Amino acid sequence: MISVVLLGAGNVATHLYNVFQDAKHITVTQWYNRHLSKLTTYKNEVEITDNLEDLNPADIYILAVSDDAISNVSKALPFQDRFVVHTSGTVSLYDINDKHSRGVFYPLQTFTKDAEIDFSTIPLCIEALKNPDLKLLKTLSESIGSKHYKISTEQRKRLHVAAVFANNFTNQMYRITHEITEENQIEFEVLKPLILETAKKIQKMTPYMAQTGPAVRGDKKTIKKHLKLIKNPQHKAIYELLTNAILETHGRKKL
Amino acid sequence: MISVVLLGAGNVATHLYNVFQDAKHITVTQWYNRHLSKLTTYKNEVEITDNLEDLNPADIYILAVSDDAISNVSKALPFQDRFVVHTSGTVSLYDINDKHSRGVFYPLQTFTKDAEIDFSTIPLCIEALKNPDLKLLKTLSESIGSKHYKISTEQRKRLHVAAVFANNFTNQMYRITHEITEENQIEFEVLKPLILETAKKIQKMTPYMAQTGPAVRGDKKTIKKHLKLIKNPQHKAIYELLTNAILETHGRKKL
Repeated sequence: MISVVLLGAGNVATHLYNVFQDAKHITVTQWYNRHLSKLTTYKNEVEITDNLEDLNPADIYILAVSDDAISNVSKALPFQDRFVVHTSGTVSLYDINDKHSRGVFYPLQTFTKDAEIDFSTIPLCIEALKNPDLKLLKTLSESIGSKHYKISTEQRKRLHVAAVFANNFTNQMYRITHEITEENQIEFEVLKPLILETAKKIQKMTPYMAQTGPAVRGDKKTIKKHLKLIKNPQHKAIYELLTNAILETHGRKKL
Repeated sequence: MISVVLLGAGNVATHLYNVFQDAKHITVTQWYNRHLSKLTTYKNEVEITDNLEDLNPADIYILAVSDDAISNVSKALPFQDRFVVHTSGTVSLYDINDKHSRGVFYPLQTFTKDAEIDFSTIPLCIEALKNPDLKLLKTLSESIGSKHYKISTEQRKRLHVAAVFANNFTNQMYRITHEITEENQIEFEVLKPLILETAKKIQKMTPYMAQTGPAVRGDKKTIKKHLKLIKNPQHKAIYELLTNAILETHGRKKL
């Protein structure tokens, strides 16, 4: 049995609490938050506290707090040589105070508080300085049915950049799609299946192989027609830049 | 029962043939292609021909041929006043020779020849000049379990631009994600669930509401860190342009 003390009351903390409660080999022995009111719903299930001095011994302390708070909260913990991890995609392992045994337990997914999360589909990026700690993080991931990947702090920084492309920028493509449909009295609904299929396709083949459309075909006639149709200067700039990126990726002459 | 003559032997034609064969109220009476060899697999199931002069009367002639061929093939058809549609996202309804009753039956999806297609998830963009023709296209869509949307030629042109953003440009975001992971010895696998979740999210909420990340938060500190980490000039230019697009969309000051 792995004993966990959870710190923080945001989306990640709440989702971790729920999945830990359902896991056979994990017990959340305490849940800390600086505002106790955010945890009172859970007071009959788990020991809650707003006082770091009250923290019990545990196999692992999970700081699911905001990025800026990680360094200070880890420093304020009134013990040392215990295993303390954070759950951030951007913060270095070394931001955790060095009186602790340090690690990272970063679930790579977009969390929405009320949405149910199936942890078995969420990759966990794990990092630790000592082998037994790394082993504990692996066991923790497996106990909640998640795949784990050993990712160093330096890799994690780049992974976070990659996630901005995969998530935020992709979502901005959807937003522009939405703007174009609205402008032309087309239901956005029409494009939802295409969007889903595009994401599904690269689950099985590389994005390089999955590419279709005028740019990868080198169909400059269609590209010119499209550029003529696009009035919004922001859309036009993005169309040009991304078309050139595809042309370049696939070894064709740029516009 | 709707009788269909299918023309062409590419991905769309093949997928339409298969779904029509499974549909209760549709019968493919003939399948034409200029190269008969591409159709011989089907010769025991359906009448095949490479001669336009041999075409039988039917309720609808579906030109699932390449964009460039639509005008010529429609002209070469040795009859008039029958209902002829094409399946293209980019070609005008008016490119079909005006001796026919004209229409468009455009399934908006990325087709891969060998992949199985569930037509019930594919929106059909339909267009026709006469009401009975439009009604026939609606019935045809419903018979294969697809949702249909009435989309004019002018709307369809813009929809095709929107689809480039939703599909090709989104896929290029995945490609860049793939490049970043490869450069840093990270398995691309780690990001696949995030990519899928991002596409699933906008099935239920608008892309505007679904946006997350440093740009929508106005977190310029993280944006600067990311720009410092990105060495590839193409990636950097895209990061800057799309970050500015998100900042602009959400009413924040640009970089």
